[in-house]
Amino acid sequence: GRARDFGIFTGILKTGSNNAITDVNGVSVGHTTLIKGDSVRTGVTAIVPHAGNLFQEKVPAAIYVGNGFGKSMGLSQIKELGNLETPILLTNTLNAPLVANALLDYMLALPGNENVRSVNAMVGETNDGGLNDIRGRHVKAEDVINALKNAKSGNVEEGNVGAGTGTEALGFKGGIGTSSRVLPKSKGGYTVGVLVQSNFGGVLQINGAPVGRELNNFYLMDKNKPYKADGSCMIIIATDAPLSDRNLERLAKRSYIAFGNVGAFSSNGSGDYAIAFSTYAKNRIFHQAKSATRNIDDLNNDEMSPLFMAVWEATEEALLNSLFMAQDLKGINGREVKALPIKKTLEILKKYKALEQNKLPMALEY
Amino acid sequence: GRARDFGIFTGILKTGSNNAITDVNGVSVGHTTLIKGDSVRTGVTAIVPHAGNLFQEKVPAAIYVGNGFGKSMGLSQIKELGNLETPILLTNTLNAPLVANALLDYMLALPGNENVRSVNAMVGETNDGGLNDIRGRHVKAEDVINALKNAKSGNVEEGNVGAGTGTEALGFKGGIGTSSRVLPKSKGGYTVGVLVQSNFGGVLQINGAPVGRELNNFYLMDKNKPYKADGSCMIIIATDAPLSDRNLERLAKRSYIAFGNVGAFSSNGSGDYAIAFSTYAKNRIFHQAKSATRNIDDLNNDEMSPLFMAVWEATEEALLNSLFMAQDLKGINGREVKALPIKKTLEILKKYKALEQNKLPMALEY
Amino acid sequence: GRARDFGIFTGILKTGSNNAITDVNGVSVGHTTLIKGDSVRTGVTAIVPHAGNLFQEKVPAAIYVGNGFGKSMGLSQIKELGNLETPILLTNTLNAPLVANALLDYMLALPGNENVRSVNAMVGETNDGGLNDIRGRHVKAEDVINALKNAKSGNVEEGNVGAGTGTEALGFKGGIGTSSRVLPKSKGGYTVGVLVQSNFGGVLQINGAPVGRELNNFYLMDKNKPYKADGSCMIIIATDAPLSDRNLERLAKRSYIAFGNVGAFSSNGSGDYAIAFSTYAKNRIFHQAKSATRNIDDLNNDEMSPLFMAVWEATEEALLNSLFMAQDLKGINGREVKALPIKKTLEILKKYKALEQNKLPMALEY
Amino acid sequence: GRARDFGIFTGILKTGSNNAITDVNGVSVGHTTLIKGDSVRTGVTAIVPHAGNLFQEKVPAAIYVGNGFGKSMGLSQIKELGNLETPILLTNTLNAPLVANALLDYMLALPGNENVRSVNAMVGETNDGGLNDIRGRHVKAEDVINALKNAKSGNVEEGNVGAGTGTEALGFKGGIGTSSRVLPKSKGGYTVGVLVQSNFGGVLQINGAPVGRELNNFYLMDKNKPYKADGSCMIIIATDAPLSDRNLERLAKRSYIAFGNVGAFSSNGSGDYAIAFSTYAKNRIFHQAKSATRNIDDLNNDEMSPLFMAVWEATEEALLNSLFMAQDLKGINGREVKALPIKKTLEILKKYKALEQNKLPMALEY
Repeated sequence: GRARDFGIFTGILKTGSNNAITDVNGVSVGHTTLIKGDSVRTGVTAIVPHAGNLFQEKVPAAIYVGNGFGKSMGLSQIKELGNLETPILLTNTLNAPLVANALLDYMLALPGNENVRSVNAMVGETNDGGLNDIRGRHVKAEDVINALKNAKSGNVEEGNVGAGTGTEALGFKGGIGTSSRVLPKSKGGYTVGVLVQSNFGGVLQINGAPVGRELNNFYLMDKNKPYKADGSCMIIIATDAPLSDRNLERLAKRSYIAFGNVGAFSSNGSGDYAIAFSTYAKNRIFHQAKSATRNIDDLNNDEMSPLFMAVWEATEEALLNSLFMAQDLKGINGREVKALPIKKTLEILKKYKALEQNKLPMALEY
Repeated sequence: GRARDFGIFTGILKTGSNNAITDVNGVSVGHTTLIKGDSVRTGVTAIVPHAGNLFQEKVPAAIYVGNGFGKSMGLSQIKELGNLETPILLTNTLNAPLVANALLDYMLALPGNENVRSVNAMVGETNDGGLNDIRGRHVKAEDVINALKNAKSGNVEEGNVGAGTGTEALGFKGGIGTSSRVLPKSKGGYTVGVLVQSNFGGVLQINGAPVGRELNNFYLMDKNKPYKADGSCMIIIATDAPLSDRNLERLAKRSYIAFGNVGAFSSNGSGDYAIAFSTYAKNRIFHQAKSATRNIDDLNNDEMSPLFMAVWEATEEALLNSLFMAQDLKGINGREVKALPIKKTLEILKKYKALEQNKLPMALEY
Repeated sequence: GRARDFGIFTGILKTGSNNAITDVNGVSVGHTTLIKGDSVRTGVTAIVPHAGNLFQEKVPAAIYVGNGFGKSMGLSQIKELGNLETPILLTNTLNAPLVANALLDYMLALPGNENVRSVNAMVGETNDGGLNDIRGRHVKAEDVINALKNAKSGNVEEGNVGAGTGTEALGFKGGIGTSSRVLPKSKGGYTVGVLVQSNFGGVLQINGAPVGRELNNFYLMDKNKPYKADGSCMIIIATDAPLSDRNLERLAKRSYIAFGNVGAFSSNGSGDYAIAFSTYAKNRIFHQAKSATRNIDDLNNDEMSPLFMAVWEATEEALLNSLFMAQDLKGINGREVKALPIKKTLEILKKYKALEQNKLPMALEY
Repeated sequence: GRARDFGIFTGILKTGSNNAITDVNGVSVGHTTLIKGDSVRTGVTAIVPHAGNLFQEKVPAAIYVGNGFGKSMGLSQIKELGNLETPILLTNTLNAPLVANALLDYMLALPGNENVRSVNAMVGETNDGGLNDIRGRHVKAEDVINALKNAKSGNVEEGNVGAGTGTEALGFKGGIGTSSRVLPKSKGGYTVGVLVQSNFGGVLQINGAPVGRELNNFYLMDKNKPYKADGSCMIIIATDAPLSDRNLERLAKRSYIAFGNVGAFSSNGSGDYAIAFSTYAKNRIFHQAKSATRNIDDLNNDEMSPLFMAVWEATEEALLNSLFMAQDLKGINGREVKALPIKKTLEILKKYKALEQNKLPMALEY
């Protein structure tokens, strides 16, 4: 079950109906999961901002690089032009170029793109080499196309799926996680959705409870006990608020703060990137512009704080969901990574009164 | 008392002997506290990297701008040249230029600086206008000089002192706080010290316990109950590790993650800046260089993670100390800001098992 | 006379009617020039984006830091919030804080700002210490107020005036210079205006002619002949085009390229900053917002190239005007800096066919 | 012939013996040129910092993004870690991912890299789609390997070769160009080498002469005459000076200023990136570090100006060489791009006294 199913309620804001990035209208997610033989433990996850031709109707977007030790592609153009023109694909580190190439195949072949000669493929990655034969680069073009074609709205599969198939986080099996928040009407009523590919270390904390220490499983605990501190984290953020790319960048940045809430500190070897986009229809950027200027709506700087809170809360919960939904996995060289032990964890959470916190005061302004 | 005096132990690393930024050898701190009449509630805090002429012997330094809604001065030169050439002064927003001017007085008058015609004054600020007659700009040149002359090593005054005299944080009286961490010998044995000027909002969390919600005092709780979400936070970081300015910037960035641990998310109106410097003697930059190149030691990227953890932990604890050491204060327009209610807070912490966590496993690698 | 008066026509675009930053509707410029005794050679220049209360009606703005070895103030907030809320003041390096403080006086006292408790003062500077007693910090608050009150549209004084009183550029007397460009109607018909405070070195080139080398006056020419390579350059850019802060930053960046055209390369000691703002009325940011979102016009990325060309051309010509309009000046310690020798220079330009280039093909698209 | 062969001497500094990036000791360059049938006009260029295993012995490196409208890969890790761990490959826009994938093949297969599971492939690109069937992605893995294997020191092929096979610049056929500068001994005697892949527009200027206007071939000249303003430029910079990544970034930035000297202004559609690395042996970063710190030499900030001048001059000349060494080329859809008309150009240069400027004063400090 997901964190919330076990009584873990983080934050003071309400979630969207699916508590997923797909709560942002129009956003869909697709996975290709590759588990083959003893050592293929990887995949692809596609996050699609809208159902149309994204190259022809780009969305405002921004990047925040928490720790740039990673191989994500497409960053500089998003930063320069303030928009995203392909779906976002996540995969493993050494497969990123191949996945980007397949994404080009897909984009160039879309009806309406016959004359397109330049596409900025956005591909993120984390390193699943602890379980996956990453040197084998087992993700192939067809896996990419399948993830894109599988993309759907509604519930999102989490845990050992897609690009999270072989990842590890905070001493346990990680993977894909997602969550969302909806603002009070008085604050605009906007939705913020987050999807993460978790693959990093620290000192696991769940809703304030020191789970990593209680379980004797944390960074720097014991030099004789291996602990994977590095790895990376991709954070994808969608919102329907009418944000400029500048405010999208500020929004993306707040996801970094959520690391503290799960006990992570962005270690040297963790390539931590956040990508935020807005689906607000009026602000789309048409590749074939009808006029020299766009008329757009732009949320005031002063209205950003509730959105910042929303992305912070949703990132924390998405990270927790990636742990709670993951399962034990054995991979390359016979190495096994255990999922978070749910029963023991819940005992710890109970001890620290970290369950049923929805009974504490919430935001009253809805 | 400080957080630790009440049994609040955050993190898994050991502190330095004073649990203060002054644990980094050579660093001293001085305050000028201005409390006059009904409405002057402000001051100056000076952080001095070493006892010599800092312009003549600069230290490697870096900046991280978490949220640039602030008026700090001196940032761009530190970023460009990778060094700091004055003590760091903290004050209130509208006094920053005047304080910078007084810092120029001080620097130009130092023996050896008779021919200096360019000085990059580093001044940070937060807005204490909720309690202080900030428009009056009551900090004067002599107050700046006094803070510099008062600077001393050893224990650091915290709470309603210096630049923290009139600040507020997380719904209560904020102020100056400090903390430090020492790495295990196997990780270099370096010290990291942090000093904060806290003045921002959120949903207060202490060592994982939801104190703000238990006390019905948090951002977005109730539109009819005022809550100050904005304000800013200055974070000063010192270390004796031999770090390049690039790795100092990475170090500074990790302090931002600590916001999550106290329940802050860097609201729109909070100008959040971190400044990090290294006191490692061999790496100082002499204004009158003896040769075209410096021979320096540079810690490997791969060695940074324990330092990242240290700054993350020390920032959290410095923020807590700023709350625990603050006291009720009444200021301009008769407005009063209450300190964190210690007794009630400890009851909450007890309920959430957030005390005596030093009995949990710690880093064993010392 | 100005460069154009001597037959020096740079670029292929047309200028505005005054060939000045004031060609951008609503922009005004004021100077206070301080020449006293043997050694006071400095001043203040104010660039005012519009005649209203700028704090209450902010303008979209951006910063580009070419070389951050400088003491400009106000940068981080402009970058974070994408707007400018005070006039831009230029002065000498060591007077920047005092000038910022006086700008606060001015802003806080404006009708409508009675309750304002936070103002981001934008002050730029270059180092005029070669001619001016810079350590004396001779600019006073009243000089700042005078520059602001003197601000007017129409012709702009250039050369040894205001913040350019004591500056030097490319081996000769520098100072204030300005220029503008108007785009063809088919490209939007927008105006771009530039004002510079020139104070840097290199190998002077005028409209392609190697004037510095012909005059035996350039960087690295001869170690026995002093040459001032450092110093800094402030570049202020105004436009009436409806630009986002992102595109204003991109616009600001192109001014850096113009350095090459006059023979500068942004030496280590030259703090080179560009600040761009848009006066497009609909896009102003009201401090007291009437609604949560602004409806604005945003020029498409694809329309930026002509504006980039305009700022590049106007910056080159503003730099040339700062040289051509400057005059010999003797200052501190009896040191004298000669103005560009006009007669000799024109002979060189004639030799290199650098005059009357308006007879070459121009942009035909008007 | 190269620019210098025709009497075009730019700048005041001396070149290295080959006037090429390979003048920096240890640097080699290889090309694969693909000209097939009517429409394949593309290739790969490899710049190899040293002959060893670059992953195991990384070099200090930095990035400057002039205009981020491009698809270069590997940028964020270089920025974060300050080093380069693969050769730099240049190719066409849509082939960048495939080339990166082939570079991974190459790196993973190197002796000593058997256990490597993470490699940051540095691939740059410009868009040669005006002459090349870019949608066909004709560069294959073997072409990449060949470019790497072909890499050699000494003379570098220029013009229509490698990644420059199908590019266009300033209205004419562009391509690969290179140049170098050597500092006077008194300034350290360091070498700076530059290699460019030119593919952008503007108003061509050669050594100050307005060649584009004289030839009626420039941006905005005439809406009825097509002119390719966009396209991009990759600039690779090598030096043997002992520079920190911060100073390498500052060095890279100065190449942007050289655009002005050839008449370019970094149009919206031109993805302009500079990558700089240092070959200084002592400062290499060993993947298997022998100790926690490196002892390195670091050139003082104050020594950077001559290097800044060197990169500025060498970039200008490399861009000119890319034009002078290119040849007419017919490509996709029968479109032909003419090389710069040498004879006419030399007449223009003669008219403007832009030839034999080596007879003007040079830097005397050698």
